[in-house]
Amino acid sequence: MGAGTAGEDLPHVVIVGGGFGGLQVARDLRRAPVRITLIDRQNFHLFQPLLYQVATGGLAGADITSPLRRALKRQRNTTVLLGEVNDVDPEARTISVDGQPLRYDAAVIATGVVPDYFGHPEWESRAPGLKALADAHELRHRVLDAFERAEAEPDPEERARLLTFVVIGGGSTGVELAGAIGELAHRTLPGEFRRIDPRSSRIVLVEAGPAVLPGFSPPSRRRATRALERLGVEVQAGTRVADITAHGVTLDRDGASTLLPTATVAWAAGITGSGLGATVAARTRCQRDDRGRLRVEPDLSVAGFTDLFVIGDLAHVEVRGAAIPCVAPAAIQQGRHVARILRNRFTGIARGHRPFQYRDKGMLATIGRAAAVAEYRGFRVWGVPAWIAWVVIHLIYLVEFQNRILVMTQWVSQYLFSGRGARVLTAPPVRNPER
Amino acid sequence: MGAGTAGEDLPHVVIVGGGFGGLQVARDLRRAPVRITLIDRQNFHLFQPLLYQVATGGLAGADITSPLRRALKRQRNTTVLLGEVNDVDPEARTISVDGQPLRYDAAVIATGVVPDYFGHPEWESRAPGLKALADAHELRHRVLDAFERAEAEPDPEERARLLTFVVIGGGSTGVELAGAIGELAHRTLPGEFRRIDPRSSRIVLVEAGPAVLPGFSPPSRRRATRALERLGVEVQAGTRVADITAHGVTLDRDGASTLLPTATVAWAAGITGSGLGATVAARTRCQRDDRGRLRVEPDLSVAGFTDLFVIGDLAHVEVRGAAIPCVAPAAIQQGRHVARILRNRFTGIARGHRPFQYRDKGMLATIGRAAAVAEYRGFRVWGVPAWIAWVVIHLIYLVEFQNRILVMTQWVSQYLFSGRGARVLTAPPVRNPER
Repeated sequence: MGAGTAGEDLPHVVIVGGGFGGLQVARDLRRAPVRITLIDRQNFHLFQPLLYQVATGGLAGADITSPLRRALKRQRNTTVLLGEVNDVDPEARTISVDGQPLRYDAAVIATGVVPDYFGHPEWESRAPGLKALADAHELRHRVLDAFERAEAEPDPEERARLLTFVVIGGGSTGVELAGAIGELAHRTLPGEFRRIDPRSSRIVLVEAGPAVLPGFSPPSRRRATRALERLGVEVQAGTRVADITAHGVTLDRDGASTLLPTATVAWAAGITGSGLGATVAARTRCQRDDRGRLRVEPDLSVAGFTDLFVIGDLAHVEVRGAAIPCVAPAAIQQGRHVARILRNRFTGIARGHRPFQYRDKGMLATIGRAAAVAEYRGFRVWGVPAWIAWVVIHLIYLVEFQNRILVMTQWVSQYLFSGRGARVLTAPPVRNPER
Repeated sequence: MGAGTAGEDLPHVVIVGGGFGGLQVARDLRRAPVRITLIDRQNFHLFQPLLYQVATGGLAGADITSPLRRALKRQRNTTVLLGEVNDVDPEARTISVDGQPLRYDAAVIATGVVPDYFGHPEWESRAPGLKALADAHELRHRVLDAFERAEAEPDPEERARLLTFVVIGGGSTGVELAGAIGELAHRTLPGEFRRIDPRSSRIVLVEAGPAVLPGFSPPSRRRATRALERLGVEVQAGTRVADITAHGVTLDRDGASTLLPTATVAWAAGITGSGLGATVAARTRCQRDDRGRLRVEPDLSVAGFTDLFVIGDLAHVEVRGAAIPCVAPAAIQQGRHVARILRNRFTGIARGHRPFQYRDKGMLATIGRAAAVAEYRGFRVWGVPAWIAWVVIHLIYLVEFQNRILVMTQWVSQYLFSGRGARVLTAPPVRNPER
């Protein structure tokens, strides 16, 4: 049997990346007269917004992943291919998968972003980002291991260093991660150790701007800072990172530089387009923004190539002069838009490409248990109502019914007992060398 | 604060290993006038009987592990120590943890067993056993990866090799693992691939004896064989392994030797006492059986050392002339017994050491969905009733409430939809070099 035996002659749509955007394109083309190949280097769709909960032992990796083959099982026009895309040739309309060329009639690049270390690649191993499942496992290992090593450490200075956790970047990922470490130290772990008191941990959230959660309104940002402080998180705004070493972090604030000794640093400060984005840009002479994201046409295609689209975090799209944020609803909407274009094109409905319209679903960030900030079209919601909205929305967006039940079970248990069950500390995982 | 600040002068009980036996000793001594140190090299208690479900993507590792610190959080007389025990000096009554000596008044060794490769250490990397969580993750990776590679493989011969799975050893672990691979290939994966049909997989269970499940009665063994065959598992009884290479397995049967090409081999054939068992035996001149397990006294102490006990899979105990099997209920009962001895000793109740009495809880093995064989004091139960007993017993024995809910959720989903959600295929994990 060959791929798409039933439709060798149908137009071939190749989707690279099985995240929110890529998966949406495939799903929306399920009844279209096309054959689809979805390529990902991992066999699962990852629910990235909850990755920080894996990093802090609240959820297991399996709870926020869905096997791509299962998600697309009943969609007979779609083949899932596990592989690494090395190159795209937009003139020949081929994509190279692990060195093998694959011809396409339309291609959608949805490979997202990776952490950006601002020209300091040596920081990567010292401060893992939070974009891939391997990152979350690595960070979980470091956080749990720091508490274990502190418990065994006789020297008070080294113990204090081990109990210092630094999160760099005060966007929603950084805020949610710092809040979760705060919960871990102040609500989950106290009582479990005999020599250290986890409540003596110092959790520092470093933000270059004047306050956390850029993009939110000043009152929400103040509210988030207070919620973080209640969880024992120290917010250092207006502060930049000058260096990260094995011993600690050097911080710059108002020209003064201080060394913060720590064994655990997480990076949530910057992102840059994934490697394939640079390749596509070079091949198509597509402009990139300062974060390495591709400036696509209003219909999400790459200028000059009507059969090549870029969607999701990797795409820089401006609607009414403002760039669309890197959030899951934007990727999903973009996936829907491209699927609609391709459906119309391949069914012969001769319609022009309408520009992508972004429906802002608002902004939402949670800070520990029963606290969150939300903004939606000028409305602000804080505290428990915002947190309930956060819980409901995240459960709805989880791809599979089983994941919803599993995640809900663990959230209920965490809410009632402050328990975090997924605290498996094994031999340190190898970080993915391709990252 | 030092360990056991509240009771520096209390007798010190050191427990090595946080499995069923070790954890039981600690729990049963929670109100005894002792201070306890429980040492494990991992931070969790592992529910080993369900490890094969992690290896086949049915459960996540976190579902069958409980953080030891959480399990013993409220037990203020107990300190959990993460570390590797390198040595025991029974004369000086010290245990060496990562090179640091720790004095004890009573010590309990409960470090279990590891796979035994019958003098072929080179087989270990080719055929992982199923005793540690890292083994299960390794095996899960190999099984899922084999299907993925088969989907991409043009050569039919190599594809057939990739779709051949060999389980060596027809005890309950081997039977349950082979059955789970059968379920995966015949019920979960069909429909998810486009080039291969997972139902064409060949799953071979190799057993040296005349039938699977030694220890069970002949009718149960026949029944288990039939249940396996219904799941597409080929049972090769009376067959021995002559060699395992990267290309396949050489099998010997009635003097004839055949090569079975395969990329995935699991080892469930033999076990041997863990490394610390050999050290204890050498230090105490304790006899070991042919599986490297220590022949302890009827009260579970090591001959000549009334303050040193060995329990669980590592202990060879004979009750009425028969060795007690390596099962969780035996380890738990032994843990209770030793805790009772120590409680009596340290509260000054001058009672002699009564010999350990084993209450046989019967034998139980499950074969896929809704099939199992059970034997209890001469009664035999098969099929759905045995499977229900298996489900209930396993849920009861799971240490924590949250794990019970999580496991139950996934079993219900698997039962209804044949789904297996924990099919995360990432970069291959490193096998624990200490194993």
